[in-house]
Amino acid sequence: MRAFKIESPEEGLRAEIQEKIDNLNKPKGSLGRLETLAMQICMVQQTLSPQLHHPCHLLLGGDHGIEHEGVSVSPRDVTWQQMINFTHGGGGVNMFCRQHGFKLRIVDVGVDHDLSCVPGILNRKIAYGTKNFLYEPAMSEEEFDKAIDTGAALVDDCYAEGCNILCIGEMGIANTSPSSIWMHLFGQIPLDECIGAGAGLNAPGIQHKKEVLHAAVENYLTWREDISPSSFLLPPSSNILRYFGGFEMVTAIGAMLRAAERKMLVMVDGFIMTACALGATQLYPQALSYMIFGHCGDESGHKRMLDLMHAEPLLHLGMRLGEGTGALCSYPIIVSAVNMMNEMNNFENANITKYF
Amino acid sequence: MRAFKIESPEEGLRAEIQEKIDNLNKPKGSLGRLETLAMQICMVQQTLSPQLHHPCHLLLGGDHGIEHEGVSVSPRDVTWQQMINFTHGGGGVNMFCRQHGFKLRIVDVGVDHDLSCVPGILNRKIAYGTKNFLYEPAMSEEEFDKAIDTGAALVDDCYAEGCNILCIGEMGIANTSPSSIWMHLFGQIPLDECIGAGAGLNAPGIQHKKEVLHAAVENYLTWREDISPSSFLLPPSSNILRYFGGFEMVTAIGAMLRAAERKMLVMVDGFIMTACALGATQLYPQALSYMIFGHCGDESGHKRMLDLMHAEPLLHLGMRLGEGTGALCSYPIIVSAVNMMNEMNNFENANITKYF
Repeated sequence: MRAFKIESPEEGLRAEIQEKIDNLNKPKGSLGRLETLAMQICMVQQTLSPQLHHPCHLLLGGDHGIEHEGVSVSPRDVTWQQMINFTHGGGGVNMFCRQHGFKLRIVDVGVDHDLSCVPGILNRKIAYGTKNFLYEPAMSEEEFDKAIDTGAALVDDCYAEGCNILCIGEMGIANTSPSSIWMHLFGQIPLDECIGAGAGLNAPGIQHKKEVLHAAVENYLTWREDISPSSFLLPPSSNILRYFGGFEMVTAIGAMLRAAERKMLVMVDGFIMTACALGATQLYPQALSYMIFGHCGDESGHKRMLDLMHAEPLLHLGMRLGEGTGALCSYPIIVSAVNMMNEMNNFENANITKYF
Repeated sequence: MRAFKIESPEEGLRAEIQEKIDNLNKPKGSLGRLETLAMQICMVQQTLSPQLHHPCHLLLGGDHGIEHEGVSVSPRDVTWQQMINFTHGGGGVNMFCRQHGFKLRIVDVGVDHDLSCVPGILNRKIAYGTKNFLYEPAMSEEEFDKAIDTGAALVDDCYAEGCNILCIGEMGIANTSPSSIWMHLFGQIPLDECIGAGAGLNAPGIQHKKEVLHAAVENYLTWREDISPSSFLLPPSSNILRYFGGFEMVTAIGAMLRAAERKMLVMVDGFIMTACALGATQLYPQALSYMIFGHCGDESGHKRMLDLMHAEPLLHLGMRLGEGTGALCSYPIIVSAVNMMNEMNNFENANITKYF
């Protein structure tokens, strides 16, 4: 895997940013989360007057071998069908991109269907879906590296257009399963507590999913026979990422890391993208500084996974559609935080008695 | 007080709306709060294809006699100073109105300062602040009626412009105090649990505020000597509203009720506006159907007051600026819910295997 040179934002400007925020025409702290968000954005951009340019949304699609085990309520064909549907503009992701002015890139990185001739889908296919991680690694080392590079290259394209804020979403039937396992292994949280209903499993379906994923983790331990069972949990481990990950997920990690390397803001969506953020920060903890967590959904364990990163999401709207929709809905809040820094008077120029 | 003819939305359309929502191209329920919000908006507008037109924001300013008791960290002069500041565009409310396309009306209904010559402030002054409710009713019956009528007339102006969604904010130093008392009396919640820091009181300041408000409620009971102490809590009671309320608060209630009468959506902001919503629904419970609660802030008791109305706010961003800023920040979520109903494909026209 390529190396990324990711720097934490310089601390030198923090006091000056805080002073500007505190002197805006409002009781100190009264804009709540907008203020902490403004601080993060100013730090990333190293400025007192942040700007958002050319927001882009990467919608990454891929299929999962584990889907063959019946861990998902939806059949895998929904992945390619939805990818095509997105090109027609009628998906959830489309309407939110339109509403908030995001340029949408729909990218096939691993869908189990030939989409190469579909206008509007970028063909970056690494394979026709991953292998079934119940029995073997989901992808080879070469495929893993290619997925990371693909994500980085997609970010480079956005960057070249002037984008400084990136959102990432996914379409991949069964991808809550690898996400749950990443959460379990990286977060050292009991596997059962990492597993939820996905797109709508019933109780027996969830039970079956748990059994499959327990077996997969056990098989992984056997596969990793060269490492003692007591130490395999230790991050960073790209092995865990490639053994269980989907192409859309590893590509997302590559995109997150490249965006952080380029000092772009990265908007993180729901359970699956939060698992990718967790994976990315296992490799490069400092990437966290660039991430804005948009939404905490209902998928079991999402909040606990956010807590692992001390991440405070902007929205809690009970969404669980994926595609990046939760994060996209949070964009106006990010704009508000930026506007606060640029448009709000301070006490001096507003002629207000400063009451703090 | 004038009578309002407020009807709950007709129930007949509910099943058809739910069917449309459930057949959109997404796992059932996966857009979470957007779906319940879309249901509410469709019911209010009695349509499967809701629209938002000419959003307006009423920013109502008034001063409070109780401010003389030192219950607020800010001096009352901040009210008129901020009102003038808003006309220059540099306040929190201004930037959010710009961001979300709201027409802003800045209205003096009771500021303790002559603002009649300030361009950009509508002069609807009822008095130069309320009386001190520690000793006497904040306003007379005539003033109360005038404030209700003023709110209704302001809504009529918005309606005439084509507005079907209204947001209301307030500027009034010390207005968390009457809000806390309304919450106490209408919600039958111990007064101490209704009192918070306002714009930033310290612990001794909060203690003093509690003592003043306890005394005020006791004096109110004496004043209401014609009613037995055991029954005075029973709503509806416009006496409670006029004894403690600010002009900006009673005007807001008039606006909420008139908007509900006209079947307009009403966006409800933080602690003070939630207290007004509570007051409005004491008078007309069916007005609740038209209210969208934008934001749950940090002011002690705000969530409990929302719970009294079974209200689920859209945002939790820790804001406590007032002016309507929390509610305004929630507007893009409301737009998203409307877009969902109008722009999202259903399973048939998207050619997706319906998996529910």
